[in-house]
Amino acid sequence: MPDPSSTNEASVAGLPPNRIETLVDGVFAVAMTILVLELHVPEAPGDLVAALWHLWPKVASYAVGFVILGTLWVGHHYQFHYIKRSDRTLIWINIVFLLAISFLPFAIGLIGSHGAERVSCIVYGATVNVAGACLLAQWLYATQNGRLTGRAASRAVVAALRGRVLLGTFVYGAGLAVAFVSAKASLVVYAAMPLVYLLPGKIDAHVRPESAP
Amino acid sequence: MPDPSSTNEASVAGLPPNRIETLVDGVFAVAMTILVLELHVPEAPGDLVAALWHLWPKVASYAVGFVILGTLWVGHHYQFHYIKRSDRTLIWINIVFLLAISFLPFAIGLIGSHGAERVSCIVYGATVNVAGACLLAQWLYATQNGRLTGRAASRAVVAALRGRVLLGTFVYGAGLAVAFVSAKASLVVYAAMPLVYLLPGKIDAHVRPESAP
Amino acid sequence: MPDPSSTNEASVAGLPPNRIETLVDGVFAVAMTILVLELHVPEAPGDLVAALWHLWPKVASYAVGFVILGTLWVGHHYQFHYIKRSDRTLIWINIVFLLAISFLPFAIGLIGSHGAERVSCIVYGATVNVAGACLLAQWLYATQNGRLTGRAASRAVVAALRGRVLLGTFVYGAGLAVAFVSAKASLVVYAAMPLVYLLPGKIDAHVRPESAP
Amino acid sequence: MPDPSSTNEASVAGLPPNRIETLVDGVFAVAMTILVLELHVPEAPGDLVAALWHLWPKVASYAVGFVILGTLWVGHHYQFHYIKRSDRTLIWINIVFLLAISFLPFAIGLIGSHGAERVSCIVYGATVNVAGACLLAQWLYATQNGRLTGRAASRAVVAALRGRVLLGTFVYGAGLAVAFVSAKASLVVYAAMPLVYLLPGKIDAHVRPESAP
Repeated sequence: MPDPSSTNEASVAGLPPNRIETLVDGVFAVAMTILVLELHVPEAPGDLVAALWHLWPKVASYAVGFVILGTLWVGHHYQFHYIKRSDRTLIWINIVFLLAISFLPFAIGLIGSHGAERVSCIVYGATVNVAGACLLAQWLYATQNGRLTGRAASRAVVAALRGRVLLGTFVYGAGLAVAFVSAKASLVVYAAMPLVYLLPGKIDAHVRPESAP
Repeated sequence: MPDPSSTNEASVAGLPPNRIETLVDGVFAVAMTILVLELHVPEAPGDLVAALWHLWPKVASYAVGFVILGTLWVGHHYQFHYIKRSDRTLIWINIVFLLAISFLPFAIGLIGSHGAERVSCIVYGATVNVAGACLLAQWLYATQNGRLTGRAASRAVVAALRGRVLLGTFVYGAGLAVAFVSAKASLVVYAAMPLVYLLPGKIDAHVRPESAP
Repeated sequence: MPDPSSTNEASVAGLPPNRIETLVDGVFAVAMTILVLELHVPEAPGDLVAALWHLWPKVASYAVGFVILGTLWVGHHYQFHYIKRSDRTLIWINIVFLLAISFLPFAIGLIGSHGAERVSCIVYGATVNVAGACLLAQWLYATQNGRLTGRAASRAVVAALRGRVLLGTFVYGAGLAVAFVSAKASLVVYAAMPLVYLLPGKIDAHVRPESAP
Repeated sequence: MPDPSSTNEASVAGLPPNRIETLVDGVFAVAMTILVLELHVPEAPGDLVAALWHLWPKVASYAVGFVILGTLWVGHHYQFHYIKRSDRTLIWINIVFLLAISFLPFAIGLIGSHGAERVSCIVYGATVNVAGACLLAQWLYATQNGRLTGRAASRAVVAALRGRVLLGTFVYGAGLAVAFVSAKASLVVYAAMPLVYLLPGKIDAHVRPESAP
């Protein structure tokens, strides 16, 4: 290597973000799929229909938890669509984010087994709020003066995605606050929250595919 | 960012579909591999050959379930070969699809432990039918006026892939209907269904590799 | 879509093989990592060193099984380096290959718990032989008249990779044959086999990186 | 194939390293996520808050173990940013690396259940040291005369990344040495070590993203 300050160096300034995506997608895929391990196939002889019926709180918490994971994945997906570079801070925000994601199967299992108890709803709500706070921190950090998004994200996109993550943080924060008063009421808030994200938002106008000519 | 309506904006219209593929492939990989966790290594002393022989219904349901997962993955793979853009609707069709895929290890375990009971065959058949319905919905949605496929999929391709997924939906729907009458008969239909997909179809003429010159 | 026989059609002739790679890498990653689930942390009070020492057959089978999975992954990796297109046959060879790979954690667990019994060594050897046979079938199918490799693989590369997979098949086939006579002798053959692959082979001359100028 | 020594051959000299990345990211994703399987949802009736409180050593070892896995992943990520080619040696260094990574959930579970015992701290520290030694070996091997990095890594980058991995190896080696004297003191060293990596280092100056104009 004749020249330590070679021009190739310039081309690597700013790590590409694609490997963070791979790790994040992998953790989500595993977390989503091992949720089902909380559902144990009834092995004892006897009335199988009754045994399966007995599982319904676990099935419900599994389905709601899966959709929550889906919502968080979609949020991350939209943000990384505009994040063009990574740095050490972004990596560590993502590792804390994944810590919360990987903890979710435990928190969801807690809801499935003890959904009516206050401590379950607090642990679950707090976990989702940590994940949401990471998404908010990531977006604020990445878009500040276009630090990691460059020109890829217009002001309108920055504001639209910030609004979406703030909305989720607000609803889940409210659910967590409610959990201190009433466990059952917080479960309703938690279950309703993904519905908010199913609706199209301002951001969709920016990523709307053009119709084929 | 001097110009919020920069031209870079245009290049991101329509999210690329590759990250959905990564998540889907990850969930399939995990679901396929954790199937084996239903097979517990016999730890008790005694006749190991007899203990393994006792496992055969679980081994059979594992192998059939694995191949079903393979069939659904292939179907998704072929469709995404032509889907060039994604949007919120496509993402959520895929999340519901993955909810069914991640539930399959439980449904397959149910067949392995209680294959001769009606409720097992209904739960299993219903799960595969939800997954199949998602594939059908995805293809109809993506190809309507070339919404997400653009010019990548010709009319012949659209019709060929629609035909394949309809065929699978029909066979599995029939299996589910049969399950209400006879559990054992439905198992035969379920096990036979992948054979249909092993045969080449019209779609293969479109993706056939050219021979090397 | 004005023209069903558009020229875009030509560009998709032959599915690209990258999604098979993603699925295969995912299954290998999960299979390699869930091997460790066979190692249960001793929870009972008492002498922990003795309890861990008691685990050594499971640790040994875990390490050997991990390296075998690594060997099979490397074999697949080298072949796919030259496979430039996929088709339905290739996909299904890979799904059968993955069926064997996903079964390996069970077979390895069997060796860890009952390594001295003949049936364990037969089940394990047979599983690895199925995986090896799939690699052999894949290479013969893909390279026949350059069906899926095109000009990417020269005759020397085709022969070198065929030789490597034949060597592995031969050694593992011998191990399986030995298992019918002596379980312990087959374990020695199984454990020694990866050493063969650690050695460089003819193929490495073809993929040897050039030194930097 | 008319010409076995075709010019296409040249373009494949040196396997691209991207598939190693995929496997590594997959193993990390699974290892990070199955850590949570050590946390069993308390199923027995009784005081849930007390039962969860009882889990705190496992939660602490889970969180610290997760961050250690994150640290090792980041180290691998930075190195592979500069590694442009792979060969058989690099592949096998990575397989040994992954053997240590996949063993970590067991070692972390050991700390969670028996953190105050010497043998737990030795097993855990030794596992992380094997992983760190693989990263060090990989970087020395890849950068020797630019073997696999070519001109991508300047002398300053080579030295900066070597310094980082040496630092981690030193701290973890010290923790392992301390474990032979005092289990609790080694736990403090292990838990403190990721803090070292949170700080920016010389390498960040090389991969620092440029601010948007």
